[in-house]
Amino acid sequence: MYTASQLLETVNQHLSSLNYSRPPQGLYDPIEYVLSLGGKRIRPVLLLMAYNLYKQDVNKALAPATAIEVYHNCTLLHDDLMDRAEVRRGKPVVHSVWDENTAILSGDAMLILAYHYLAQSPGQYLQEVLNLFNQTALEICEGQQMDMEFERRYNVTVEEYLEMIRLKTAVLLAASLKIGALLGGASAADAQLLYDFGIHIGVAFQLQDDWLDVYGDPKVFGKKIGGDICCNKKTFMLIKAIERAEDVQKVQIEEWIGAKDFDEDEKIAVFTDLYNQLGVRKIAEQEMDECYIKAMDCLDKVSVPNENKQMLKKVVAELMNRKI
Amino acid sequence: MYTASQLLETVNQHLSSLNYSRPPQGLYDPIEYVLSLGGKRIRPVLLLMAYNLYKQDVNKALAPATAIEVYHNCTLLHDDLMDRAEVRRGKPVVHSVWDENTAILSGDAMLILAYHYLAQSPGQYLQEVLNLFNQTALEICEGQQMDMEFERRYNVTVEEYLEMIRLKTAVLLAASLKIGALLGGASAADAQLLYDFGIHIGVAFQLQDDWLDVYGDPKVFGKKIGGDICCNKKTFMLIKAIERAEDVQKVQIEEWIGAKDFDEDEKIAVFTDLYNQLGVRKIAEQEMDECYIKAMDCLDKVSVPNENKQMLKKVVAELMNRKI
Repeated sequence: MYTASQLLETVNQHLSSLNYSRPPQGLYDPIEYVLSLGGKRIRPVLLLMAYNLYKQDVNKALAPATAIEVYHNCTLLHDDLMDRAEVRRGKPVVHSVWDENTAILSGDAMLILAYHYLAQSPGQYLQEVLNLFNQTALEICEGQQMDMEFERRYNVTVEEYLEMIRLKTAVLLAASLKIGALLGGASAADAQLLYDFGIHIGVAFQLQDDWLDVYGDPKVFGKKIGGDICCNKKTFMLIKAIERAEDVQKVQIEEWIGAKDFDEDEKIAVFTDLYNQLGVRKIAEQEMDECYIKAMDCLDKVSVPNENKQMLKKVVAELMNRKI
Repeated sequence: MYTASQLLETVNQHLSSLNYSRPPQGLYDPIEYVLSLGGKRIRPVLLLMAYNLYKQDVNKALAPATAIEVYHNCTLLHDDLMDRAEVRRGKPVVHSVWDENTAILSGDAMLILAYHYLAQSPGQYLQEVLNLFNQTALEICEGQQMDMEFERRYNVTVEEYLEMIRLKTAVLLAASLKIGALLGGASAADAQLLYDFGIHIGVAFQLQDDWLDVYGDPKVFGKKIGGDICCNKKTFMLIKAIERAEDVQKVQIEEWIGAKDFDEDEKIAVFTDLYNQLGVRKIAEQEMDECYIKAMDCLDKVSVPNENKQMLKKVVAELMNRKI
């Protein structure tokens, strides 16, 4: 069994061995740029870990692992353009360094490159892996569409929100794990259990991200605390608060959401207070716990020796700041 | 053997049987819209014709034929956004009816849907078909990038232009034919000959499009005559004219290209005169003839009975306004 950090090293070495120094540079330079920005590479690492539950020669799963990471970065590139974001991983985004057309076309090329790497999956698994990838990528488009629509709606329900983050975030983690399992020769039952494990973990990650925006340690959390609050992002916290607010609090929330000029720290303090008063902090923590427990239940049922699962448990616990 | 119009009917029926009435509508409605705008469906028809050279049951190749048409419409959607076009097939483009983000995301979903249909190719051919499609789609991105870069350059050579139209236009016709041939069980040699046939035909089509912009019959040509001239599009005609112009004519061309306010009809008349004077009309016609002859040479070498090739010859001759 490989450790997560060994697999991360393998993934990073492989990614930096890909060479996009080719003409037309206006198309390929942005791809090289995006892939060199780093990141946790959690999806390809999970793919290799799932593969490694069944087989040792993880190099054989490197091409599909690369496909997942290239695809993920393609979605970030297009999402950042659609969200008019300016910074990604501490660096200016592609549509700022180059222009919007470059972000569109280089993103398209990255999506095609993802399929290029995916096509290197062993022939016997190709159709199944391709079908799962297609379904997943389409679901991620649906999730992004829902996310954009939620920006213009005040009445998003918790159920709608959970479905959106399942589509936008969780299915890619789940598909990474399932593809790794399939390529490793897992049974259909095991592959599905690892998929479900990925869904629950993915939802838990996103809920944690929402929670950290309010309660995170500024020294540890990569982004500015309260960023979601300032831009009225419909997070689990905000939706739950609106759901539970009394009339007076509802008016307060609506006023702050409608305010154009405001003191950021004041707005953050108001919403943090509201979340505490309304018990939203606790509810979010309970929801995360439930997801985490469901995930571990799935993993427990996977029919490989328990000691083989420790690596996967460890990496997920670390990402969720938990002890195992 | 099926006629081209029978195959067109099959393609159109199949395309209208696809149902994109599903949530989220903001994602899928634009896809339904784009696919309902019609078009000649030349690529899927060529795929089915190539298949039909070898096999009769063309329904088995309908899914990959659909993949090619959905992919082609995805490139039109993103290209129209990048080119800030307003009308496609007489209807407002997606980024006008909806918005830019919709054009980006629905285009991405169409690219994924193309792979969804492609994945329905019979397993034994899937890897080869997928690899060819990936290579082709990446080349089309390269062609679009070159086309955008040419807008900002005055010194584009004929060789560069021919390479650009090979990538942007010809490779998809070629890949359609080759995929049809492969699925039909053609030999590698036949599949390659049909690919090369498609390349020459594709280049000839684009050269004809350039020529028709100047010399076409306004009643027959779908677009406004002189559109390329007015917007300084680096067509074969313009590049060849710049190459062959004497100093005085070069100055004249540069002045007209730099002019902000001008009478469109006057500009069209000036360039048409220049093309006639410089022999560019004849050169373009010769270039088209050469491509057409090369294409027919390739088709002649394909090892199926001559009478089976008549349908393909006929449809290409019609598209090139030629008699066979």
